[in-house]
Amino acid sequence: MSTIPSWSDIKIAHSRIKKYITETPTITSSTIDDITGATLFFKCENFQKTGSFKMRGASNAIFSLPPEKRLNGFATHSSGNHAQAVAYACKTAGVKAYIVMPHNAPKVKIDAVRNYDGEIHFCEPNEAARLKTCQDIIARTGAVFIPPFDDAAVITGQATASKELLESIPDLDFILAPVGGGGLASGTALTVKYISPTTQVILGEPEIVNDTYLSLKAGKIIPVTNTNTIADGLKTTIGKLNYEIISANVKEVIPVSEEEIIAAMRMIWERMKIIIEPSCAVPFAAVLRRKELFLGKKVGIILTGGNVDLGNLPFS
Amino acid sequence: MSTIPSWSDIKIAHSRIKKYITETPTITSSTIDDITGATLFFKCENFQKTGSFKMRGASNAIFSLPPEKRLNGFATHSSGNHAQAVAYACKTAGVKAYIVMPHNAPKVKIDAVRNYDGEIHFCEPNEAARLKTCQDIIARTGAVFIPPFDDAAVITGQATASKELLESIPDLDFILAPVGGGGLASGTALTVKYISPTTQVILGEPEIVNDTYLSLKAGKIIPVTNTNTIADGLKTTIGKLNYEIISANVKEVIPVSEEEIIAAMRMIWERMKIIIEPSCAVPFAAVLRRKELFLGKKVGIILTGGNVDLGNLPFS
Repeated sequence: MSTIPSWSDIKIAHSRIKKYITETPTITSSTIDDITGATLFFKCENFQKTGSFKMRGASNAIFSLPPEKRLNGFATHSSGNHAQAVAYACKTAGVKAYIVMPHNAPKVKIDAVRNYDGEIHFCEPNEAARLKTCQDIIARTGAVFIPPFDDAAVITGQATASKELLESIPDLDFILAPVGGGGLASGTALTVKYISPTTQVILGEPEIVNDTYLSLKAGKIIPVTNTNTIADGLKTTIGKLNYEIISANVKEVIPVSEEEIIAAMRMIWERMKIIIEPSCAVPFAAVLRRKELFLGKKVGIILTGGNVDLGNLPFS
Repeated sequence: MSTIPSWSDIKIAHSRIKKYITETPTITSSTIDDITGATLFFKCENFQKTGSFKMRGASNAIFSLPPEKRLNGFATHSSGNHAQAVAYACKTAGVKAYIVMPHNAPKVKIDAVRNYDGEIHFCEPNEAARLKTCQDIIARTGAVFIPPFDDAAVITGQATASKELLESIPDLDFILAPVGGGGLASGTALTVKYISPTTQVILGEPEIVNDTYLSLKAGKIIPVTNTNTIADGLKTTIGKLNYEIISANVKEVIPVSEEEIIAAMRMIWERMKIIIEPSCAVPFAAVLRRKELFLGKKVGIILTGGNVDLGNLPFS
């Protein structure tokens, strides 16, 4: 039995979550087209509710359950955008969100979850403590676990971003997304496969957390060893279901350096006057690195989020 | 003879410049509406060509002249958004732009003008040197001077921003703009007077450069004495024609502190994920300061520009 989401699953998810999410705009920039030589379409998930595409997957996971199964609330462990999305989607559903975070998580992220009425449970900053704390909460409360990426309902929700993009700009030569755990990347690969098979999906990944690049090369999942990237949404090892979908449908992962990520982020801030987080500068950095590949092509880029700590920016 | 632009002047200007400017979007934010208790419509001139509304006035001034009068190019003195707008509009018109800047102008502003092929002439950093250098260039080259704000063609161009705003959101209770020299403020006052007389125009001004506030109170222009504000677009004394229009059509100027400007700017960056410069946080800071005045009202705010030095931000 395959758990790989079908096109019908994605369409149903989109109708289900439409009232909880923003249909984000796709914007263009003639200056950036001049610089790259490509025609770029930026899908602005930085304008999504809670400031990232994670709202799509979280709300699909929550609202695909019947109301009686939502009563005990939901739990997850995350210190990033997934935590905010689960907290906000639970608030919308009128149920509790239990969010497990390491006690050294940045205050700005703790505040964001509290802002959406998430109940935060602190733990030691390691994987085992996160899982244990989350399991204890679930055992005690009956809350349902929402995985950050390795989950069919979450992937199906994330797939709706490229569905909107392709429905408004149908004949793209390429779609680029960043890859961390692979929720958005695998969802994008599925949508493209179902409705725009001539479009090529290319993933951007930080050079120093290049587990997806290495995994595709090795033919099996190679876990992350170094997570010291500025792209804080892309530090995790790719998930199993995500790897299965990506390895079957994605031809290329382009690794980019930290300097390239910061330069790409700065270019979008300066030229387009929008705030994007480092993780979503990664695919744009890939376009800048490999200009010849995209020259004269129509390229969609999913800008995944806009949650940054303004007191701690990488610009000098 | 009055030089005050008529509604017909504004309509003609709008058709004239339409192909050179962007019709910028008007955006909303449910989070910010929740915080203020008002319904806010942000007219995003930060997405305008050259990153500010100044492109409207500069292109109207340039293209309202017949082609034979444009041949010798245009000159101005400015180290800010007006310089970039004149340079870019001249590039579009295929003529030279002579931009006089103080030799200590920030590198980021010099680069921006060079980027649009403006010919920069440095001078000592005082008003007399700026004027003298500009006059010398005009005497030598036959270039036409484009004043930054105290000019009917410039005011008419700036008036098209609120024309677009009111044509898309017709029944606003208030429109807010910042006031420096008064180009945008007077243009906004005229548009409102002609097509939406029940809308009230309110201006935001930095408390420490409150010349317009003082001028309206005194019934005559009171020159700026302190220019030490973070709102670098609002350091100049209000112009004569601008004062004439504003004193006849604007009821209130709300002064705001430097701390309020930075907090308002941060709130828009964090909640709306768009980059605005300090000057255009000023009217939003006025809404936050005087919440009771705007409670339950439909309020338009012109976000004037997005040109900031990312290496020198006021956030900690």
